[in-house]
Amino acid sequence: MEADSQNWILMVTARAPTNIAVIKYWGKRDEKLILPINDSISVTLDPEHLSATTTVAVSPSFTSDRMWLNGKEVSLASERYQNCLREIRSRGKDVVDEKNGNIIKKEDWQKLHLHIASHNNFPTAAGLASSAAGFACLVYGLAKLMDIEERYQGELSAIARQGSGSACRSLYGGFVKWIMGKEKDGSDSVAVQLANEKHWEELVVLVAVVSSRQKETSSTTGMRESVETSELIHHRSQEVVPKRIVKMEEAIAKHDFQSFARIACADSNQFHAVCLDTSPPIFYMNDTSHRIINSLERWNRFEGTPQVAYTFDAGPNAVMFVPNRKVAGCLLKRLLYYFPPDSSKSLSSYVIGDTSILGEIGLKSMVDIESLTAPPELQKGSSHSTYPGVIDYFICTRPGKGPILFRNEDQALLNPKTGFPLESS
Amino acid sequence: MEADSQNWILMVTARAPTNIAVIKYWGKRDEKLILPINDSISVTLDPEHLSATTTVAVSPSFTSDRMWLNGKEVSLASERYQNCLREIRSRGKDVVDEKNGNIIKKEDWQKLHLHIASHNNFPTAAGLASSAAGFACLVYGLAKLMDIEERYQGELSAIARQGSGSACRSLYGGFVKWIMGKEKDGSDSVAVQLANEKHWEELVVLVAVVSSRQKETSSTTGMRESVETSELIHHRSQEVVPKRIVKMEEAIAKHDFQSFARIACADSNQFHAVCLDTSPPIFYMNDTSHRIINSLERWNRFEGTPQVAYTFDAGPNAVMFVPNRKVAGCLLKRLLYYFPPDSSKSLSSYVIGDTSILGEIGLKSMVDIESLTAPPELQKGSSHSTYPGVIDYFICTRPGKGPILFRNEDQALLNPKTGFPLESS
Repeated sequence: MEADSQNWILMVTARAPTNIAVIKYWGKRDEKLILPINDSISVTLDPEHLSATTTVAVSPSFTSDRMWLNGKEVSLASERYQNCLREIRSRGKDVVDEKNGNIIKKEDWQKLHLHIASHNNFPTAAGLASSAAGFACLVYGLAKLMDIEERYQGELSAIARQGSGSACRSLYGGFVKWIMGKEKDGSDSVAVQLANEKHWEELVVLVAVVSSRQKETSSTTGMRESVETSELIHHRSQEVVPKRIVKMEEAIAKHDFQSFARIACADSNQFHAVCLDTSPPIFYMNDTSHRIINSLERWNRFEGTPQVAYTFDAGPNAVMFVPNRKVAGCLLKRLLYYFPPDSSKSLSSYVIGDTSILGEIGLKSMVDIESLTAPPELQKGSSHSTYPGVIDYFICTRPGKGPILFRNEDQALLNPKTGFPLESS
Repeated sequence: MEADSQNWILMVTARAPTNIAVIKYWGKRDEKLILPINDSISVTLDPEHLSATTTVAVSPSFTSDRMWLNGKEVSLASERYQNCLREIRSRGKDVVDEKNGNIIKKEDWQKLHLHIASHNNFPTAAGLASSAAGFACLVYGLAKLMDIEERYQGELSAIARQGSGSACRSLYGGFVKWIMGKEKDGSDSVAVQLANEKHWEELVVLVAVVSSRQKETSSTTGMRESVETSELIHHRSQEVVPKRIVKMEEAIAKHDFQSFARIACADSNQFHAVCLDTSPPIFYMNDTSHRIINSLERWNRFEGTPQVAYTFDAGPNAVMFVPNRKVAGCLLKRLLYYFPPDSSKSLSSYVIGDTSILGEIGLKSMVDIESLTAPPELQKGSSHSTYPGVIDYFICTRPGKGPILFRNEDQALLNPKTGFPLESS
């Protein structure tokens, strides 16, 4: 039977992680294809805590491509979506839909319309790379739907890249490098996995979601203005980053936390320095971000070697890395001492994700937080401040795996009968 | 009669201005001699509003060198004071003290002790380059006391430089360049006047003193750490600054406010970018500084050409330049709209210095500030915030003249009979 009946719907559901860069991507050499001016390296975060889930469906009954994000319809008109959809469709294969007894021929993908529903398991507005997870999930899901196998390593990442640059890095778990590439068509600007999520299993990641009422410059606008006006960005991309990439790969390969921390912190700060060197200047970090850094740097200096690495993307949130659970406990105690929740919050809404570390350090309730004492790096009797309420919440997580396909239809965000969003999404 | 009686005291009183760099000095190539890694350019501020007054006295009755700053004795033991005193003493001339009928021979300056009293007409702690005015005034006053004429242009500035780098620029009024120099002994690292204070008389300067509870990194420590750890500072000093110096000199010569503003803002932001690129990173600007910049950039963008230039030194205070009194009125209205005083303040304590502009724009009391309306660059109906109480006060001033000697003994800060501080100082 051929794909001529109007009644069938074929769909798949996938999940893709976010990632956080430890060598930053900032600046494009091609705005349309999203080709960067330097390589970057990221850590993929556990999708259990930070990921996008996307259902993609195809049906002859669909009259146009449509998308729902977190239950709300969004436009697919942007060049970025259109580029991803075009690139993916052109690679579609003959698909045998055994359940419905259909065959979709590869040329059919050009005509058939798609319904897409996507959902993030974390607040989209929190500035946690939701577009990276979203585009990675979209491309990965569509590739599964259309039975696309990569003709060369990283082909799918090069498609996701055209949706959102950093999305290419979310196609792999663990530690990922986005190679800037040389080709004009961007075909060699792909992500490669440096090591999977098991490689450095001890690593703990802590995200501080910082309250902000400032409207931030979008990273697309920001990096364009940096490329056009910063006098430092080219020195960074050409002279500084290439050396750091080599050293960061080495640090990851050797589980060398000290080097990892030094490079990650320096590179985050340099990215924000380039933002400041932009005209008009771009400020992503705020006073709370500065205070987080000061408290971490004070601890690192006191201990003589880096205990914690930090990195900030295009917003005030801190992403922190510690080498193991023990140090994670020390970090959490410090952060909860300096940045306690405001009195209206419960501990379980203030620290989320893998909260088992809280138990290990004996923090069970708000009373335990209130009785935390000043860390030893604060000199006795020296005046210092604590900042209640300036952090919204913390997420405890770890390096995680790449995109997966859900075998179970329970995870679908579209109704398998209608192809429209389920009410629950 | 020779200088052998123990009773005489010879003293002079001088005043020296502060200055604000528009091309920043950040980084030394010689820590001891205070030799910079790039040229810098500054505007001298009107000493009426921001200056140091210093009385220097010599007497055979003094048993040691002593100094009082704002009425409180301070130590002269630091290398910086010792270098200035040694350099100045070695250049002392034979002085005929006609009033007392003494002759001080040039070799006597090595043996005679000095009393020094200095006073700033603005809060020392406000981060307004008090050390620049202070060391310039000390060196200038001592040179007058010891009848020292410069053997080469800028010789005194090279001495003041050894007290505090930027002090060398406070030895001239108007627009001043500190030439980094090439010599190992620093003899050619001197300040030169580009134009005097009459050259661009229309220029108005507004200082916003920003409240800060953060302890800031001293600029001495900060610039040393930047030189040691920043990967961007050398590119800045070698590639970026030399070109900006040429353009800034041209802008000043031609009264080209647009170029002046663009370069000054870019250079201030780049200096802070280098601070961020330092390990550990240095934050001098805070959220209030960022908000000031955002409001000024929004206005400049709305008008299409720069209305206002801003620059920030090693602290959160903003120094703003506008081309004339009319634009100064527009600026003040905006600043008082976004950053009103908290309710406990009076207008006369919130805007100080040359407050005549307030009258010109019809602001006579706090009620007038409360009735200010949103500037046109804020889109109608768009949400925006105002920030009461985050600025301590504003100082309205202008480019000013260099150091002067007070002929009138009334200005002295030391008792002419005892050589000790007057109670009033």
